[in-house]
Amino acid sequence: MTIKTNTYHLHLESARKRPIVFQLHQADWLAAAKRHRALAKKLRVTIGHDNEILDEALKTADFMINSTPPKDGLRARAPRLKWIQTTSAGVDGLMPMNWLPQDIPLTNNTGAHGAKAEESCLMALLMLQSRLSEVIKNQHDHVWKPVFTTPIAGKTVVVVGFGDLGQGAGRAAKKLGMNVIAVTRSGKATQLADRVVSSKRIDSVLPKADFVIVTTPLTEETRGLINRERINRLKPGAGFVNIGRSPIVDYAALRERLEKEALCGAVLDVFDIEPLPPDSPYWTTKNLVVLPHISCDDPRYIEHLLDFWFSNFERFLTGKKLKNIVDRQLGY
Amino acid sequence: MTIKTNTYHLHLESARKRPIVFQLHQADWLAAAKRHRALAKKLRVTIGHDNEILDEALKTADFMINSTPPKDGLRARAPRLKWIQTTSAGVDGLMPMNWLPQDIPLTNNTGAHGAKAEESCLMALLMLQSRLSEVIKNQHDHVWKPVFTTPIAGKTVVVVGFGDLGQGAGRAAKKLGMNVIAVTRSGKATQLADRVVSSKRIDSVLPKADFVIVTTPLTEETRGLINRERINRLKPGAGFVNIGRSPIVDYAALRERLEKEALCGAVLDVFDIEPLPPDSPYWTTKNLVVLPHISCDDPRYIEHLLDFWFSNFERFLTGKKLKNIVDRQLGY
Repeated sequence: MTIKTNTYHLHLESARKRPIVFQLHQADWLAAAKRHRALAKKLRVTIGHDNEILDEALKTADFMINSTPPKDGLRARAPRLKWIQTTSAGVDGLMPMNWLPQDIPLTNNTGAHGAKAEESCLMALLMLQSRLSEVIKNQHDHVWKPVFTTPIAGKTVVVVGFGDLGQGAGRAAKKLGMNVIAVTRSGKATQLADRVVSSKRIDSVLPKADFVIVTTPLTEETRGLINRERINRLKPGAGFVNIGRSPIVDYAALRERLEKEALCGAVLDVFDIEPLPPDSPYWTTKNLVVLPHISCDDPRYIEHLLDFWFSNFERFLTGKKLKNIVDRQLGY
Repeated sequence: MTIKTNTYHLHLESARKRPIVFQLHQADWLAAAKRHRALAKKLRVTIGHDNEILDEALKTADFMINSTPPKDGLRARAPRLKWIQTTSAGVDGLMPMNWLPQDIPLTNNTGAHGAKAEESCLMALLMLQSRLSEVIKNQHDHVWKPVFTTPIAGKTVVVVGFGDLGQGAGRAAKKLGMNVIAVTRSGKATQLADRVVSSKRIDSVLPKADFVIVTTPLTEETRGLINRERINRLKPGAGFVNIGRSPIVDYAALRERLEKEALCGAVLDVFDIEPLPPDSPYWTTKNLVVLPHISCDDPRYIEHLLDFWFSNFERFLTGKKLKNIVDRQLGY
């Protein structure tokens, strides 16, 4: 391959152990390049897996798309690197960001998850309201027992975090005619929620919740936010959903309340250890639905990621500020 | 009790074998009478169960609310009877209506089920789209296996029957950004569906369905409508929901396609024999969710029924035509 002048080098790197929908393969790239012909002509592309060609690629790479960027001596290894795009939205695994040279922006994939998150939250809310866990258990036991439940409209949901995922949860709840209270860092009002409070005031709203949906990224501020005391203060019969990250919530405390039937149920999409080990107690916790980290991910994930990257590449070429630049201190 | 002049006699009758949410008890009546004081003053009320006081009550009853009105010699037994309200929406159990005197209107409880049906259809569509049956089975087997699915928006649902339940299904699908094709007797257009076809043209739309939701009442026209041939013509991977009545659908054919994984799954709320017997094959049919006839019923059922009855009673007193009068020929 002859390297043209005015050509940038983009390196795509992914790990084979990740689900295939998150891996970057040549077919994905060729399809995206077809959708963005003019921009693709400005690029020379290398595609690697499991860091097999990473060091060689870094020598000339201007841009990199990677789920877990290399942290050691990055500037020396990648003298021309100008921008890193992560494949995921959450960058908690990359904190603290002292490994990242100041002049290299890191952009994440937030915005790719809202549509699927909205539908997953709609489903989770209705499953909890209609006590579907109990109905499914009855089916398993061949027991016909009508469990009548009112419509969910009019009930209150507290959405913790109100970014891409949280707004998806909020849209879901509004479609169901629910009252939405958002908890955010700033507490600044938004039209998508009936009320917004700052995370410092979370205790004033949690006891009002018929349902809680945790969507926030994992940061130093959110780690342990939904602690045992707060879980114990939830309304009897409340429902709980976590599509954010597990260390935000005291799962042991949650499990105790579920086993006592103090809550109507929970839908958890994220766990400390994934895949969840076969002997984990969560598989069999009463009224707990275990989702294998699928609630926010569209299988067209890489397609959307590359489209987003191209739109950002166009901004780069025209000198505009990139979208989705991660705040190195806040961690999202 | 002294019987005032200008007082009508209303008899409430229910069967103890029915779920409690469908039974008429004194507490229900007293609460409703409080909400409609002025109208309630015009009524003398008797409340019976299992026909224990039925014959005595019929002698003087002007109105009756009953799930299964007495069919034998009704006019002779109830000389003053002016109007019967059924507690259910479906009146297929009362067909043919040759037992009903021409001058006694029968009103049903259609309209009471739409809100709950809408939420149940929302949940059923999303459960099928996200292959929740498989996810729940994996949880049962302690298997972590991410099943990634796209959002449902943009997919097509064919709603068979577009009355109270069908319009609920339609609203659900529109909230999810789906394309809605309604199948009705007349095929007359409605704003709630993207397209309406008459039931005679059902074969032209079934193969387009990513999902089918059956909501129609059971009548001579709808019995067997979704027969084996039509089920076999459904798109591979389509999802199926029935919240109407089971004899509309060939369940044996449906079960065969589910077992072959030719469909993504089914959610069935109605069965030929209810309660479903413990040895029924439906409990364990692949990717079938068995709901115990709960999808359209709000536990505030009787409250809504009595409110509806009072609004109709007001129409009666002012000489207006009653709402929800059942067509004796069509059976709904």
